[in-house]
Amino acid sequence: MIPMTAPNAAEVRLAAQRIRGVAKRTPVMTSRSLNDAAGLECYVKCENFQTSGSFKIRGATNFLRQIPEADRAKGVVAVSSGNHAQAVAIAAQLLHMKATIVMPDDAPQIKLEATRDRGAEIIIFDRATQDREVVAREVQQRTGATFVHPFDHPWTIAGQGTAALELLEDHPDLDSLFVCLGGGGLLSGCAIIAKSINPRIKVYGVEPELANDFYQSFKAGHPVRVDHSPTIADGLRTPVPGALTLDIVRELVDDIILVSEDEIRAAMRFLMMRLKIVAEPSGSVTTAAALAHKLPANAKRAGLILSGGNVDFNVFCA
Amino acid sequence: MIPMTAPNAAEVRLAAQRIRGVAKRTPVMTSRSLNDAAGLECYVKCENFQTSGSFKIRGATNFLRQIPEADRAKGVVAVSSGNHAQAVAIAAQLLHMKATIVMPDDAPQIKLEATRDRGAEIIIFDRATQDREVVAREVQQRTGATFVHPFDHPWTIAGQGTAALELLEDHPDLDSLFVCLGGGGLLSGCAIIAKSINPRIKVYGVEPELANDFYQSFKAGHPVRVDHSPTIADGLRTPVPGALTLDIVRELVDDIILVSEDEIRAAMRFLMMRLKIVAEPSGSVTTAAALAHKLPANAKRAGLILSGGNVDFNVFCA
Repeated sequence: MIPMTAPNAAEVRLAAQRIRGVAKRTPVMTSRSLNDAAGLECYVKCENFQTSGSFKIRGATNFLRQIPEADRAKGVVAVSSGNHAQAVAIAAQLLHMKATIVMPDDAPQIKLEATRDRGAEIIIFDRATQDREVVAREVQQRTGATFVHPFDHPWTIAGQGTAALELLEDHPDLDSLFVCLGGGGLLSGCAIIAKSINPRIKVYGVEPELANDFYQSFKAGHPVRVDHSPTIADGLRTPVPGALTLDIVRELVDDIILVSEDEIRAAMRFLMMRLKIVAEPSGSVTTAAALAHKLPANAKRAGLILSGGNVDFNVFCA
Repeated sequence: MIPMTAPNAAEVRLAAQRIRGVAKRTPVMTSRSLNDAAGLECYVKCENFQTSGSFKIRGATNFLRQIPEADRAKGVVAVSSGNHAQAVAIAAQLLHMKATIVMPDDAPQIKLEATRDRGAEIIIFDRATQDREVVAREVQQRTGATFVHPFDHPWTIAGQGTAALELLEDHPDLDSLFVCLGGGGLLSGCAIIAKSINPRIKVYGVEPELANDFYQSFKAGHPVRVDHSPTIADGLRTPVPGALTLDIVRELVDDIILVSEDEIRAAMRFLMMRLKIVAEPSGSVTTAAALAHKLPANAKRAGLILSGGNVDFNVFCA
């Protein structure tokens, strides 16, 4: 077994090499309107333009590339109805591996089809009567497939950190970095590399008020669950932090900021009307914090990770 | 008076220098999904990310920079309820000139305010009883302001051509270029520079079926009017080609392609869902032509100018 210890900055740099040719180097956008409205300089890392529509391809690719040769032919298995599913399916297709994705029976048809289009096998479970972990474990036992954790694994974390590595390569003089917070994989990876590049940089997580399990866990010092969150930010509904990600976040992250549903919707609208880009609700939380003047007063040059752009038309236009 | 002759490629290159610091060099996006759906390689020049939200800032800036010193203090006047108004207001503000914008009384409140926010003076005319040209001429006579034509002027045309210049600098091996067609300023400027850089490149205009005045004029060889077009592509409702732009387009442009309203809406949706970018209806017509398989069969590497992203939320989400 791989030891579950935090990856270091060198592993994030190695991940940057491993993901080349699969993940894109995404652009960083700036906007006078955003700076004026937020009252500071904002540098938006546009992971909505990423392959698969979100940063998740970074962790998935870094993970798949490290699966030992002997296990590669047995494929991979992931549990997700969202961005992680798409990312694992695409990474597997591009790396010529077999992927099985375990999805709940209430996953949107469009996401089922998008995942199937990428050559993945879909296994549907009944959310009411079946446990997704049990279903995934059954696939593992039957096929020998490797389970790709969406956040709580050093390979995943190191991969996600490449987003901050690129941002800081492009803009080395940022004084602060804001990252959305679901399971904590993106924030952990970004904090590891950012604090290594610049020990004085401040790193913050941003989480919906309605899904504040990480905020509560961060303050309490142990995992706190928030089940069935109704937040519009579907990518951040993870009910409980990972063991590894909670450790990393408690050690490296300066604070966690909470945003309301209205602030998230306002940020999506602002990004649409002013920056002309489509962000999913989860991807909008960092901009939401900036527009709501919730960034710390000493932040003058802030990096905002916009994590993805996979949003249903009806949600976007609601 | 300035002679109304077509600008040459050298003037487009000079314009590229004049607009620096006001207009941005916009990115060119590519997308596997778009290429797959269109059946060829597409290179999308993202003028929706441009200062002012559309390419119009290019022509406006190039125009304002060439106003003789003696006339600069008298300011400029423009007639527009749309992107040209915003562009002239912003260019004037950045170049420290006074701008008066003549707008119809039914212009959206949000556009009035955006233009006023840029320091422009707004003069409202009654669309039912007043002629916009007469109102503008009255401003000119009273103030000595220079009239900034939205398309039918060599300074405007040369400025707009810088969009194609940048695109071909980034991607010199395009075999074809597709440009939206309202008054013809953007298409004229782009055709002039593109055919100068590569005489073998094919250049096409794309126009809504419901606003096909340029198509009809191009085929007839003389200006044909289409008044009060109901097309959703509000930037392309110009009722009749310019005298200068019609000459240039008839000389340099290979053909004009028409797209339906449904094709425009589908393209906006595709750009949103797949490329994660916000395009206004007028900006979507080139992508619409590609997705509807209306590009000529010998086009293999197509440049598509996406002209702007200024769209009301309600129109975008309709």
